Amino acid sequence: MRLSVAQARDLVERAMRALGHDAGEAAIIADHLIDCELRGLSYGGLPRALSICERFARLGNRRRPIQVSHETPVSALVEGGDNLGYLVGHRAMTIAIDKARRSGLAIVGANDTWYTGMLAYFAEMATKQDLVSLIASNATPWVAPHGATEGRFGTNPICVGFPTDGDPVIWDIGTSTIMHAEVLLHGRMGTPLPPGVAFGPDGAPTRDPAAALAGAMAVWGGHKGSGLAMVVQLLGMMCNSPAMPRDIAEYGCLTVVMSPGLFMPAADFKKNAADYADAVRAARPVAGGPPVRMPFDRSAAERRTRLAADVIEVADAVHAGLVAVAGG
Amino acid sequence: MRLSVAQARDLVERAMRALGHDAGEAAIIADHLIDCELRGLSYGGLPRALSICERFARLGNRRRPIQVSHETPVSALVEGGDNLGYLVGHRAMTIAIDKARRSGLAIVGANDTWYTGMLAYFAEMATKQDLVSLIASNATPWVAPHGATEGRFGTNPICVGFPTDGDPVIWDIGTSTIMHAEVLLHGRMGTPLPPGVAFGPDGAPTRDPAAALAGAMAVWGGHKGSGLAMVVQLLGMMCNSPAMPRDIAEYGCLTVVMSPGLFMPAADFKKNAADYADAVRAARPVAGGPPVRMPFDRSAAERRTRLAADVIEVADAVHAGLVAVAGG
Repeated sequence: MRLSVAQARDLVERAMRALGHDAGEAAIIADHLIDCELRGLSYGGLPRALSICERFARLGNRRRPIQVSHETPVSALVEGGDNLGYLVGHRAMTIAIDKARRSGLAIVGANDTWYTGMLAYFAEMATKQDLVSLIASNATPWVAPHGATEGRFGTNPICVGFPTDGDPVIWDIGTSTIMHAEVLLHGRMGTPLPPGVAFGPDGAPTRDPAAALAGAMAVWGGHKGSGLAMVVQLLGMMCNSPAMPRDIAEYGCLTVVMSPGLFMPAADFKKNAADYADAVRAARPVAGGPPVRMPFDRSAAERRTRLAADVIEVADAVHAGLVAVAGG
Repeated sequence: MRLSVAQARDLVERAMRALGHDAGEAAIIADHLIDCELRGLSYGGLPRALSICERFARLGNRRRPIQVSHETPVSALVEGGDNLGYLVGHRAMTIAIDKARRSGLAIVGANDTWYTGMLAYFAEMATKQDLVSLIASNATPWVAPHGATEGRFGTNPICVGFPTDGDPVIWDIGTSTIMHAEVLLHGRMGTPLPPGVAFGPDGAPTRDPAAALAGAMAVWGGHKGSGLAMVVQLLGMMCNSPAMPRDIAEYGCLTVVMSPGLFMPAADFKKNAADYADAVRAARPVAGGPPVRMPFDRSAAERRTRLAADVIEVADAVHAGLVAVAGG
């Protein structure tokens, strides 16, 4: 069915409050999930809200207050207290931005969290303050290393964002061939996975979402991509998070924020970055191919279009599930 | 022909001194190039020494002293003065390690350099001091974005290294499907490039090394890999380096060094990282496949083997070229 942006936001906020979040927390979570919808990444939007509700239903509300420790002028550790990554990551980025504005550089670790969301959301918090950021988040070991069929790392997103004079450049990828949320969505919708993205518990390739969840997803990018996934797992471990977090818990997330003014006037960097982005977009395409896009170009365009249309499409089953949690 | 490690090192040191480097500089360059040979990455070893000589022959000795500017407790800019990246990167990592030992975190930019070498070499300088590092280096825009046939970024290596109780974990990749040094080596040896790695100046795929050097190399990893290459180009730009450096000059290289003791006891991190590496190696391989390797495992093993054998194989043409420069 179709909702307006305000209706979708209200539904998510009510569902999150029904789980025990306060109004401010519910607004932070909803803003993140709605941004996923606006950018056309629906598996990270309203369906993810339902996955959050299911985790609360399964394990109960185990939330403890978020604590900040290990603080120095350029670093801090955010101990997540089993709060959602949308909240913990928001706190981590807020602290990192504050420290980077003072010192030009900051690193903030976060642990004891789950579902860190779309890292580009946090990177955009930094680009709005004219700051560069690198964010990496590990997760439950659902993904098999290149050449293996057993999970050893999470779907492990990594993101780097740069401010420019125009839209930011934000590269945000998952290091698996398919995202965990997409596997859940296939399961929810009863559709098979694409070929080549998962192994069953016996190690054989599978297209069954349930078998994939009991087995492992395939890593992206062969041995180079597999190495990047290991790097993300280890960066998460730096935050005093377990090497292999339990099921949807204990994730680690590392945020590094840097001022582009460290080595040159920040305004010059932003102009150079915008000019460079235009030069990339103007590169001669392969014969018959579309123009080259910069990372985030499609997201920025989708968001403008959907905001103007003021429509968010949501599967009836997902809507019904959220209404059941939110009440009325 | 075959040289002992000491003979190869001596030949490279003499060639570098013949170009005008002092003994200390020649030793730093030679140690880096010999380490490439020992790790089995010969395109970055003695053939690279010859490419360095050719650049000096073509452009002359334009070296100015390396300058350090923009210094804060956690940052510095190393202005390379057209010195080799082996020297500039070594200085940058030395400064970054010193600052990170004091503050837990440091960022050092470098610019006006060329041939930054094998970034894992610098990362290993950090892991030997129990520090984590991230290094990214941009270069002349020889590589086409995904979906394009014109160069917009360099072969753009990126590297992340972690200390462990055993061998370090160092992920060091180039973001092109083939390295520039490999294209030069194919040209030198008169062998065709593998298919699918390059475009000629007309935008058509080519296997001719000369056409590839006049055209563009293909990026690795589709749109995800292309985005990573853009990220590296922009990280280099942060060091007040041009967006698209001229031919083998003006490269930018960013180094971030972090203490694993920021958020937990460093010894615990090193033990966890070693245990995790063992868990990855023990993952069930695909049917009939070899055991899974961690990044750097092969390099560490090759180096042990070659050091024990004390043999470096070098093509006769490369040896003759270096002897001609080094004299006698």
